[in-house]
Amino acid sequence: MAAADVTGGVRKRVLIVGAGFAGLRAAEALEHAEVNVTIVDKKNHHTFQPLLYQVAMAVLSAADIAQPIRTIIRSPNTQVLMDEVVGFDVDHRRAHLRSGTELQYDYLILATGSTHSYFGKEEWASLAPGLKTIEDAVEIRRRVLLAFEKAEGEMLETGKHPALNFVIIGGGPTGVELAGAISDIAKLYIRKDFKHIDPASARVLILEGSPAILAAYPEDLQNSALQQLKELGVTVRTGQRVTDVQPGYVMVGDQRIDSVVTLWAAGVQASPLGKMLGVECDKKGCVMVDEYLHPKAHPEIFICGDLAHAMSDGKPVPGVAQPAMQMGTYAGKSIALEVEGGRMKKPFHYFDKGDLATIGRSAAVGNVKWPFRAHMSGFMAWLTWLVVHIFFLIGFRNRFSVFRSWAFTYLFFQEGVRLITGSQELPGWGVEDTPVGELTTQPIEP
Amino acid sequence: MAAADVTGGVRKRVLIVGAGFAGLRAAEALEHAEVNVTIVDKKNHHTFQPLLYQVAMAVLSAADIAQPIRTIIRSPNTQVLMDEVVGFDVDHRRAHLRSGTELQYDYLILATGSTHSYFGKEEWASLAPGLKTIEDAVEIRRRVLLAFEKAEGEMLETGKHPALNFVIIGGGPTGVELAGAISDIAKLYIRKDFKHIDPASARVLILEGSPAILAAYPEDLQNSALQQLKELGVTVRTGQRVTDVQPGYVMVGDQRIDSVVTLWAAGVQASPLGKMLGVECDKKGCVMVDEYLHPKAHPEIFICGDLAHAMSDGKPVPGVAQPAMQMGTYAGKSIALEVEGGRMKKPFHYFDKGDLATIGRSAAVGNVKWPFRAHMSGFMAWLTWLVVHIFFLIGFRNRFSVFRSWAFTYLFFQEGVRLITGSQELPGWGVEDTPVGELTTQPIEP
Repeated sequence: MAAADVTGGVRKRVLIVGAGFAGLRAAEALEHAEVNVTIVDKKNHHTFQPLLYQVAMAVLSAADIAQPIRTIIRSPNTQVLMDEVVGFDVDHRRAHLRSGTELQYDYLILATGSTHSYFGKEEWASLAPGLKTIEDAVEIRRRVLLAFEKAEGEMLETGKHPALNFVIIGGGPTGVELAGAISDIAKLYIRKDFKHIDPASARVLILEGSPAILAAYPEDLQNSALQQLKELGVTVRTGQRVTDVQPGYVMVGDQRIDSVVTLWAAGVQASPLGKMLGVECDKKGCVMVDEYLHPKAHPEIFICGDLAHAMSDGKPVPGVAQPAMQMGTYAGKSIALEVEGGRMKKPFHYFDKGDLATIGRSAAVGNVKWPFRAHMSGFMAWLTWLVVHIFFLIGFRNRFSVFRSWAFTYLFFQEGVRLITGSQELPGWGVEDTPVGELTTQPIEP
Repeated sequence: MAAADVTGGVRKRVLIVGAGFAGLRAAEALEHAEVNVTIVDKKNHHTFQPLLYQVAMAVLSAADIAQPIRTIIRSPNTQVLMDEVVGFDVDHRRAHLRSGTELQYDYLILATGSTHSYFGKEEWASLAPGLKTIEDAVEIRRRVLLAFEKAEGEMLETGKHPALNFVIIGGGPTGVELAGAISDIAKLYIRKDFKHIDPASARVLILEGSPAILAAYPEDLQNSALQQLKELGVTVRTGQRVTDVQPGYVMVGDQRIDSVVTLWAAGVQASPLGKMLGVECDKKGCVMVDEYLHPKAHPEIFICGDLAHAMSDGKPVPGVAQPAMQMGTYAGKSIALEVEGGRMKKPFHYFDKGDLATIGRSAAVGNVKWPFRAHMSGFMAWLTWLVVHIFFLIGFRNRFSVFRSWAFTYLFFQEGVRLITGSQELPGWGVEDTPVGELTTQPIEP
């Protein structure tokens, strides 16, 4: 396999791995620089992760929140490659791709993010899917909708059905969003769809290992979120560490909690590419970087997004979209400066505009830090969430489409993407010892 | 397993199997009848099959052309069950479902349509997918888009790539639609997406076993279709029977034709449920029915859609959407009449409004029979096709969404659903003996 030099000249070669928020912003910052950029991603599309749960919950279509990378990045100095980096030779500044291709680089921007961590229990993955990709979202949608269909069928045959318990492991933003959305589906959107079961009898349970949900938020907003979840009928149990996941149930210590669908919103771990560099990583696999986002002794490498273990204002930079975008821009600008003979003098600084998390229809919490400081709850927080997310979505078509879908959903209680595709099996459905009939496990109120 | 009688009274029980065009129309016709209707379908959604190829070709989203059956059918006398019929006991008027449930019926409307036939070569199925379901469409989309991505990667590594030959087996309406659409993608929509390959170098080849494409159309329209395909750069070879399908190529006799993506639009066979009735079927598995759509000696059973081998005006009724809808309505009305003590006196008659087939952007042929008789070609036929298909789409949301997508695509040459999901493998890509480089197989002009 020849080392492909596609740059054809003296221009510096920048390799960006990962086309998430960080990678795309880096490419944007390099658009007019005298460099040749290659973006490599396993997928052909950028996924707007903050709205992924709405695909999982049948509000949006996959195409509403994903966009082919090639149609986003059109600058003449940039090429896109759908491939997977499987190793690095940092001494010779080379990346090895799955296809066999080797890419030379002068600068490397590594922004491959994170993936689910099942804390070493990989066998839980198929029983409790997490939410990182379009494929994950479609699988979660399939399971949630299928549970209601199976219950309807079983009710018809036997006059009873397993309790419609949906258990979400993890009470971060994703867990809270999923919980609120499942509750909305059951209580609002599919209410009239079934003749034999009452979808509103569904129970949604969040199991959070730490003492509070939404750990990154101030306490008053945590409490507000709890209150809003309670109004939606979602049960939250904190300080409850899941010790086993089985088809049809989960275990917390020696307590068994029946579950028709179990979802994973608990741990994440860094993409394995960080470790492949052979540089220092923290225990999650995030790469330790200096204030310029370089790993030690590698000024030609930038780590961006949640793969980086970075500090700003003496605090760790959180692994969410905003800092990822800022890091990408920072890395791109740094390289653009260097190739012009300059040098980035300011260390990376995370400009935190605040955080927003939705909790179903018309409910949310917002810890706003810019352009003013405020703790928001309820409808206003939700409206803010809507506007911000439409604004940051990539592509006019997507913005239009998402806006229309939300309007339809909000005005007509109609969701149009309730398609079950793929297998008709649900793990654990009809497990011999799953008690059937009315709710057998009453989740304890928090 | 108890036989579930869910009707709870003296009302007659109607079982509709299959929620395609025929099944939905039958349910509609029974909406106000004094019967209890159960619709059983393997899927939770109705698929608008005439536009399925646009999902395969990344113009539309799955959700644009599919709608959950429960949201279409809202009448109080009808229940929907997502399950699969696996057998019948016609003597006791019972259907056995995969879940174990048994359903009693007084009337049965069987409308489960057809599926691909690989003429006994089931091993071809994974190498040359056909187009019947949403899952099929997403798989075809994946393969077509992935072929261009793989070629770009290979070009970068080795400076050459396998010839981008797309081979479509079968020259009926689906084959012609797919061919036109692939040509549009390559020549119009992704033209600017790649730096190393020229997507317009893609070749599309239709292999048709019989002497002409679009066999159901009059000769002048067949010739017009041929001409329009030629203008799009699609090669058509008629009288060419495929003798083998392998990863990376197909064989016609002893001639090998390289193919990066092979699609199946050739044979169909009836759903296996016809044969399960134990009544007379033709060699495709379609049920022989009398002029009232009953199989012999079963006046309580109606066969509708392309599962029926029915005659009208002395000619076989074709297996397309229009007659399926008309048969469904006929069967529903017949039952409604009978339960009121009457009897359907008129035999089924297919009212043929004509046929339309598109051939890519702005091109189509139409054999119009109602409200006037005309042979249409080109842009006017294509416009008619657009209007008719938007009109018959189910659901306002879908009509709106499809209209918008078409407008975007037509005006901006932009398609927004070019997502590759699922595996990144392409069968036959990189097969050792696949010649690489410029087109190695020049399809012979017809």
